[in-house]
Amino acid sequence: MAHPIVDIHTHVYPQSYLDMLRARTTVPYVHDPSSGAASRLIILSSDDNPSIPIDQRGRPVDSSYSDIGVKLAFMQLHGITTSVISLANPWLDFLPPKEAQNWAQRINDDLERICAGVNRPADPDGTRPLHEKTTLFAFGALPLSAPSSGIVAAEIARLKTLSHMRGVIMGTSGLGKGLDDSALDPIWAALQKNDTVLFLHPHYGLPDAAFGGPEATDRYGHVLPLALGFPLETTIAVTRMFLSGVFDRFHQLKVLLAHSGGTLPFLAGRIESCIAHERRFIANGGDTQGPKRSVWDVLKTNIYLDAVVYGEAGLKAAIHASGGPDRLLFGTDHPFFPPLNGKENEEWLSVRTNYTSIEAAFPENKDSMIAVLGGNAVRILNLK
Amino acid sequence: MAHPIVDIHTHVYPQSYLDMLRARTTVPYVHDPSSGAASRLIILSSDDNPSIPIDQRGRPVDSSYSDIGVKLAFMQLHGITTSVISLANPWLDFLPPKEAQNWAQRINDDLERICAGVNRPADPDGTRPLHEKTTLFAFGALPLSAPSSGIVAAEIARLKTLSHMRGVIMGTSGLGKGLDDSALDPIWAALQKNDTVLFLHPHYGLPDAAFGGPEATDRYGHVLPLALGFPLETTIAVTRMFLSGVFDRFHQLKVLLAHSGGTLPFLAGRIESCIAHERRFIANGGDTQGPKRSVWDVLKTNIYLDAVVYGEAGLKAAIHASGGPDRLLFGTDHPFFPPLNGKENEEWLSVRTNYTSIEAAFPENKDSMIAVLGGNAVRILNLK
Repeated sequence: MAHPIVDIHTHVYPQSYLDMLRARTTVPYVHDPSSGAASRLIILSSDDNPSIPIDQRGRPVDSSYSDIGVKLAFMQLHGITTSVISLANPWLDFLPPKEAQNWAQRINDDLERICAGVNRPADPDGTRPLHEKTTLFAFGALPLSAPSSGIVAAEIARLKTLSHMRGVIMGTSGLGKGLDDSALDPIWAALQKNDTVLFLHPHYGLPDAAFGGPEATDRYGHVLPLALGFPLETTIAVTRMFLSGVFDRFHQLKVLLAHSGGTLPFLAGRIESCIAHERRFIANGGDTQGPKRSVWDVLKTNIYLDAVVYGEAGLKAAIHASGGPDRLLFGTDHPFFPPLNGKENEEWLSVRTNYTSIEAAFPENKDSMIAVLGGNAVRILNLK
Repeated sequence: MAHPIVDIHTHVYPQSYLDMLRARTTVPYVHDPSSGAASRLIILSSDDNPSIPIDQRGRPVDSSYSDIGVKLAFMQLHGITTSVISLANPWLDFLPPKEAQNWAQRINDDLERICAGVNRPADPDGTRPLHEKTTLFAFGALPLSAPSSGIVAAEIARLKTLSHMRGVIMGTSGLGKGLDDSALDPIWAALQKNDTVLFLHPHYGLPDAAFGGPEATDRYGHVLPLALGFPLETTIAVTRMFLSGVFDRFHQLKVLLAHSGGTLPFLAGRIESCIAHERRFIANGGDTQGPKRSVWDVLKTNIYLDAVVYGEAGLKAAIHASGGPDRLLFGTDHPFFPPLNGKENEEWLSVRTNYTSIEAAFPENKDSMIAVLGGNAVRILNLK
């Protein structure tokens, strides 16, 4: 293989983070069954169902969540040369304000140390090309619950001094009021000033009522919240950013959207049409400033999409909405969606599905395929 | 023009329906301002905001809602030769059980009369080809709140005796519990037995909490509920149908999804992946029957999509997910999304956007373009 394969959507729960969750008793938390069975990770409020025995709530924590050796084996198994690891949801959103800054620094330093530890032994003099070595980079976590946005901005600036950091990961809650909250402006400004890519990722899903109440949601396990709740949450979050003018005020903001934008590529046209027909907006005779730029322009200028969409129909829409293949980046969502047959050491179906979609999308253009698999990430995230 | 252009997504509020709403004081209702200004139609619970003066709630009812002459002028303006009209949301969902059957019969008879009145004078002997005349057909409404599903099934059968009826329109609420409610089985059975196409259309949107609460929703007018709430509602509804095995039990069910499936074409791959990784399902060692067929199979066998997606990215995903252009049908969503500059007598932007997307999707295949514009509808709905 003469080209790098870069996984930009791959999560880690550092041991320090799991230990912090272990000390908690409300979502998110880690519970250790008295039986000695595997720890349980309860991160979704829907998982913390009182009708389920606590020893069975959430999901078992296995070594893939924190052991970087498992990550490296997964990468080797799938031909991935470089991973840009990120703290998994719910990140640090839930922390008391006073603890946020310290935890962000600690987690980000842990991530930096993990990357440095992997990269040095394999390539002591740093001269081998990216496709000949296994390399890790990271997206840092932000102390969003900190008492002031200045603390968040300071951490964004500090991350630039850590040599393996290539951006930040953030959920859709922002400071608690969503991403159209004007109180986020200093954070958008810090991201833009530092040329820091924001990886926007879902966690909160949709209210159970959207799926017909808790019973309807529970009936199909995690399918409704994960297959629909997650991408719909991302779509709503980025649309609120767009409608509130974030991309009008911060023209250079770079946002990488999880799961190929949720559903943004598919719905972009409908969003544009609804804006053009909304009487509330000044452009249509109303009294409210609507977005000044088009969502198509933002998709082609500010937004990057991962290629974690599990199908050619979605991938092609993502490519079309992005104006070509140059803004799409391969990812796996590891350690989530492992094979259920116990064969973690064979190629994962979830990864294969995305590989196949990417291969099928470019039957006659290997350059574009190689770009999506890694070249775009190397260029956009400056991976060297 | 040597081919028909068929609009399968075009709504009517018959005068009888508006009069019935006029007698109501809770959503949905029609309010006549004492000033003599245009009546207001309040159909969304979010429109019935007590902080807005009642004379300004909802939207003004203009003649385009009920006057079939306005519909015909709109058709002529846009080169549409045939429309399949349907009662607009919220249909008859809200009726007291005892009134549902009579109202369904009355509304459906009204729709039949409207179609017959248009078709006869223009083509007294019924011999002119479809592209040379202006023709109306209709999707009937169902008495879903009736005391028994037998009443609904009887209306489905009766609609087959009305010569201009070509299917039924239904919202996502079903009998009040969503479309994965097993109590709907007799209705699915009746639709399948009568080979009746079901036009599935959103109305209820998502809970305000999904958008960050009522203030966040209201901030952008109708953009969030219409641009995102509607398509996400459709996606959730059809996914619940699919997950509960409706398409396993009713292999011949024909469902036409509004707005190109909401977001189903884009998310189909993720839905499949989440099912393949859901421990709850028997196929993965769990105790719950998951869907037996794949969502891709259902998309290519049971589902039709309108082409009301306002963009080439979405349209191409819809075509890809459908296995080709043969299951897509042109539509306008008239009388909604009129031009806001008062120029209703010039081509509408909302219609032009969809025409342009369809033209762009088939630059080298005029046959496919003609099929989406009308040929598919003629074949699938038997329009003659």
